[in-house]
Amino acid sequence: MSIRLGILGYGNLGRGVEASIKQNDDMELVAVFTRRDPSTVTINTPGAKVYHQDELENMTDDIDVLMICGGSATDLPEMTPKYAALYNVIDSFDTHANIPTHFANVDAAATKAGKIGIISCGWDPGMFSINRLYAHSILPVGKDYTFWGRGVSQGHSDAIRRIEGVKDARQYTVPIEDALNAVRSGSNPELTTRQKHLRECYVVAEEGADKAKIEEAIKTMPNYFADYDTTVTFISEEELKANHSGLPHGGSVIYTGTTGEGNKHVIEYKLDLDSNPEFTGSVLVAYARAAYRMNKEGVSGAKTVFDIAPAYLSPLSGDEIRHNYL
Amino acid sequence: MSIRLGILGYGNLGRGVEASIKQNDDMELVAVFTRRDPSTVTINTPGAKVYHQDELENMTDDIDVLMICGGSATDLPEMTPKYAALYNVIDSFDTHANIPTHFANVDAAATKAGKIGIISCGWDPGMFSINRLYAHSILPVGKDYTFWGRGVSQGHSDAIRRIEGVKDARQYTVPIEDALNAVRSGSNPELTTRQKHLRECYVVAEEGADKAKIEEAIKTMPNYFADYDTTVTFISEEELKANHSGLPHGGSVIYTGTTGEGNKHVIEYKLDLDSNPEFTGSVLVAYARAAYRMNKEGVSGAKTVFDIAPAYLSPLSGDEIRHNYL
Repeated sequence: MSIRLGILGYGNLGRGVEASIKQNDDMELVAVFTRRDPSTVTINTPGAKVYHQDELENMTDDIDVLMICGGSATDLPEMTPKYAALYNVIDSFDTHANIPTHFANVDAAATKAGKIGIISCGWDPGMFSINRLYAHSILPVGKDYTFWGRGVSQGHSDAIRRIEGVKDARQYTVPIEDALNAVRSGSNPELTTRQKHLRECYVVAEEGADKAKIEEAIKTMPNYFADYDTTVTFISEEELKANHSGLPHGGSVIYTGTTGEGNKHVIEYKLDLDSNPEFTGSVLVAYARAAYRMNKEGVSGAKTVFDIAPAYLSPLSGDEIRHNYL
Repeated sequence: MSIRLGILGYGNLGRGVEASIKQNDDMELVAVFTRRDPSTVTINTPGAKVYHQDELENMTDDIDVLMICGGSATDLPEMTPKYAALYNVIDSFDTHANIPTHFANVDAAATKAGKIGIISCGWDPGMFSINRLYAHSILPVGKDYTFWGRGVSQGHSDAIRRIEGVKDARQYTVPIEDALNAVRSGSNPELTTRQKHLRECYVVAEEGADKAKIEEAIKTMPNYFADYDTTVTFISEEELKANHSGLPHGGSVIYTGTTGEGNKHVIEYKLDLDSNPEFTGSVLVAYARAAYRMNKEGVSGAKTVFDIAPAYLSPLSGDEIRHNYL
């Protein structure tokens, strides 16, 4: 019997989860749930339904794990605890400062319901987090560095779009090669924000807009750009569509540690992703398998990627896993 | 209270484990156990004892986890099941074809005793294995590649030393840059053994030995060298000591996968290690913490790195782990 999944929220991440489910023979998408009028939403899975999210109250017998594909700012803090009272749930909550509260809220609801709620799943938080933990645990004397990119930051792209005279924009976060190389050499450099990443902005201006003013507004924007070396390139709407419509991303977690009489070790985990939402969705789906199986074994409450043994992610048996991967 | 460790076997790996224990405040080395006359063995930990391995029959109240630092060919198949009947144990068994038998033997002994036996721990098998599993589970459509080196292969160095006229030797396994780059590009190349790795040999010949004959014997040795491009460089004993006395190693697990409509993703886990035994020993020590804690929770039987949630490796609390690494 397949693991029956539901997707709540059908944006980029929801579609990434849907694409991943198709690659997993032991998984089945039952339905997509949306805040919108369901008749306006077309999905890519024949046989799966689209329902208004209010229907989630009535589907507990039909869905094993609910993939909550909302935003961290306002959706997930409300949705994940609410639905952890009804379903095993997975989310990708990434507002770091609020993780203790979110974890506690999901834990209370999930524990009471006998369900599992895996929060902060994806690649950062997620796979990058696991790699930081493994490295620190293996080599207690050392330091971790995280670089992001080259990839599109949705938050920074949105910030540019809010500037007067901007029609559309795409922002790439770019790790600085010299900084990467210094870290990989094991020299443990102290790096400022500016030394680690560049920000490349591709901007479509409205007709007659003051481009110099837009560029100035971007480069001086606090939190988003002021602390970085930022390039601004004005392009046409056609060029944006043709060359910047994808959502690539990636990055590296690099850990440099020391053992014995000064022996150095460098551990690097690196991702180079054509599609951030499809990769993130794929991570969520693998953890849905874990949530389902662990809950069948009687485990409940809030969990993160740290709490889940790798074997739970695989559809293979223990014998097969040892044969293929050990 | 500290986790009390014993080390069985005081070669390179045993010393690597000892070095790692010193970096972990929650760990304590109680004793080293040896087949040799204990009075001939000097260790680097003040306060720890050296005993003959027969004493292991009498130390079950004093040691929480026994680190079995023997060879995979003959030591571990016998030692690990034997001592899993008395202690939580960790080994680094790496004879891939014999893992099912070893796992079954350790599982039977450990289960009966209510102990945990973690087998095949280290970096390959070990951290590389985990990365293969995570990658295959996240991206079911894809392919993994493992490259080793640049690093010293003890087995290949030993094989050269057995050739007539060879006084000493050091063999480096070297990944071929073109192959690495082809894999990293996501092109999913089919690579032969020869296309993936070179073998560099540094050989000290005995006086008057026939160097051409030695070189021929190395390059045509089946299994070890015949399938590789191999370089042989004769050097003096002094040069071997000066430039080739370390045991560096490392390598990469690279996974290339596809999602959706042909989006490619490359995941790479890369190690660059000054000391193979110290890094391997550090992995074993982190898993000793996991064995101790899981056994306290009532878990027993044979385990591998796949079965152990990352959080068990860290001395930190769940809150601290989420705060520091998520």
